[in-house]
Amino acid sequence: MPPGDRFVAETTFHVRYAETDAMGIVHHTAYIVYFEEGRSHLGRVLGAPYAALEENGYSLAVSEVTARYIAPARYDQRIGILTWVEDLRSRGVVFGYEVVDAETRQLLVTGQTKHICVDRHGQVRRLPGEWANKMRRALRL
Amino acid sequence: MPPGDRFVAETTFHVRYAETDAMGIVHHTAYIVYFEEGRSHLGRVLGAPYAALEENGYSLAVSEVTARYIAPARYDQRIGILTWVEDLRSRGVVFGYEVVDAETRQLLVTGQTKHICVDRHGQVRRLPGEWANKMRRALRL
Amino acid sequence: MPPGDRFVAETTFHVRYAETDAMGIVHHTAYIVYFEEGRSHLGRVLGAPYAALEENGYSLAVSEVTARYIAPARYDQRIGILTWVEDLRSRGVVFGYEVVDAETRQLLVTGQTKHICVDRHGQVRRLPGEWANKMRRALRL
Amino acid sequence: MPPGDRFVAETTFHVRYAETDAMGIVHHTAYIVYFEEGRSHLGRVLGAPYAALEENGYSLAVSEVTARYIAPARYDQRIGILTWVEDLRSRGVVFGYEVVDAETRQLLVTGQTKHICVDRHGQVRRLPGEWANKMRRALRL
Repeated sequence: MPPGDRFVAETTFHVRYAETDAMGIVHHTAYIVYFEEGRSHLGRVLGAPYAALEENGYSLAVSEVTARYIAPARYDQRIGILTWVEDLRSRGVVFGYEVVDAETRQLLVTGQTKHICVDRHGQVRRLPGEWANKMRRALRL
Repeated sequence: MPPGDRFVAETTFHVRYAETDAMGIVHHTAYIVYFEEGRSHLGRVLGAPYAALEENGYSLAVSEVTARYIAPARYDQRIGILTWVEDLRSRGVVFGYEVVDAETRQLLVTGQTKHICVDRHGQVRRLPGEWANKMRRALRL
Repeated sequence: MPPGDRFVAETTFHVRYAETDAMGIVHHTAYIVYFEEGRSHLGRVLGAPYAALEENGYSLAVSEVTARYIAPARYDQRIGILTWVEDLRSRGVVFGYEVVDAETRQLLVTGQTKHICVDRHGQVRRLPGEWANKMRRALRL
Repeated sequence: MPPGDRFVAETTFHVRYAETDAMGIVHHTAYIVYFEEGRSHLGRVLGAPYAALEENGYSLAVSEVTARYIAPARYDQRIGILTWVEDLRSRGVVFGYEVVDAETRQLLVTGQTKHICVDRHGQVRRLPGEWANKMRRALRL
């Protein structure tokens, strides 16, 4: 469950056929792509798009991914990706996620990704102030 | 360009980061996944969802794919996938596609996929009548 | 580091271009596909191929994935995937992984996946005895 | 069939589980990734690696892809990717492909990709002489 005091963005879409596997369900790596799309959506909603960060020469390198699989999604299912900021530091950020069925709200997958801010040479850097300020607003409602 | 007398369905979404490659642009295989999502969308719009076809034991096996790449898409770009029925036969169907920038309408990629109707044992079969009738409506406006 | 008393299988291959992203490095989800190929390789080496398990009606559903990213891999780099059995229970198995540069042995990514044995109806089942016995050999050298 | 007078490189590997879909077979886009790995392999064999081309500031942008699907591949199947140079021009190159079962040699998929040489600014350029000369050797045995 997202912490009660956080801003939570939700984006919804249909599962694509290419995301399924021979078990007839969504492949476990697809949810980690959904997480990524979830944080892209959160950034857009907060006016802190990741694309702008990259244009300014910064990247949020992924340092850790965790995912727990509770129930499988299937082709064509409409799912919601809930994304929030778990933690924000000077040089990094942690995002939390839940993947749910968009209608029934059944919980399918939970997860977390940790990121470090790096420049174009891969050097660790402080998060740009403007971007960090917009993200910070998502920490307290 | 889609033929002037066809029903054309358009679905729009943002390019995902995972779909880019080291050239900084969308990898050429991602558009072929977009085609697939385009025909899923067309089926939903026409009331002939592909998921229902599979539940009844039929699949549309891909027999041919062609894609022509005109201009690259990039991360976060909002793109539109236009999909229409090029041809409908008793045992198969051909879909046509255009990928465009959702705002500027710049043409990015065109393509075509050919499909054969098969049952669960991989045997070629006639397209189920109800599904084919709904698809047929997309052939003439 | 893999525990000193475990059997560790290594499979090597080149990074594919499709696995890179706009940062110019391998996308973080690709390593999780490498983990999967690592445990496929381990199963083949131990005479307990996953394909045989599935033919007998069992699947190893993924219940948890963790990955820690230490250094990036790039297109064309020859990498090694080290895979071992972390834990083996009656109804599940845990695999450990390291992704390294195949020549320099630089550590790139570490990870772990947890699996539950399910049948074709998604019911939790005991791991088939023969398959489990072969996997067990990998626990003690 | 590859033209009889061409150099044909073959690389073999196992189908990965992530490459399958809910039909139980390899998803049609995976073969287009195999094509890419096939031309990477051809470049390495000819001493004209694609990675070196990119280091010198050139890319082979994909302008067209065609694939014909004859028989499905499945998880764990050992497949061979045959790749050859169909045509070599001053500013572009065409590769041909066959995907076969590595043991039985059953033909699974055939295809072709067309490429244009571009620089870092996306401008069309002549193929670098050294790289083109090495590729040219593959045109006549």
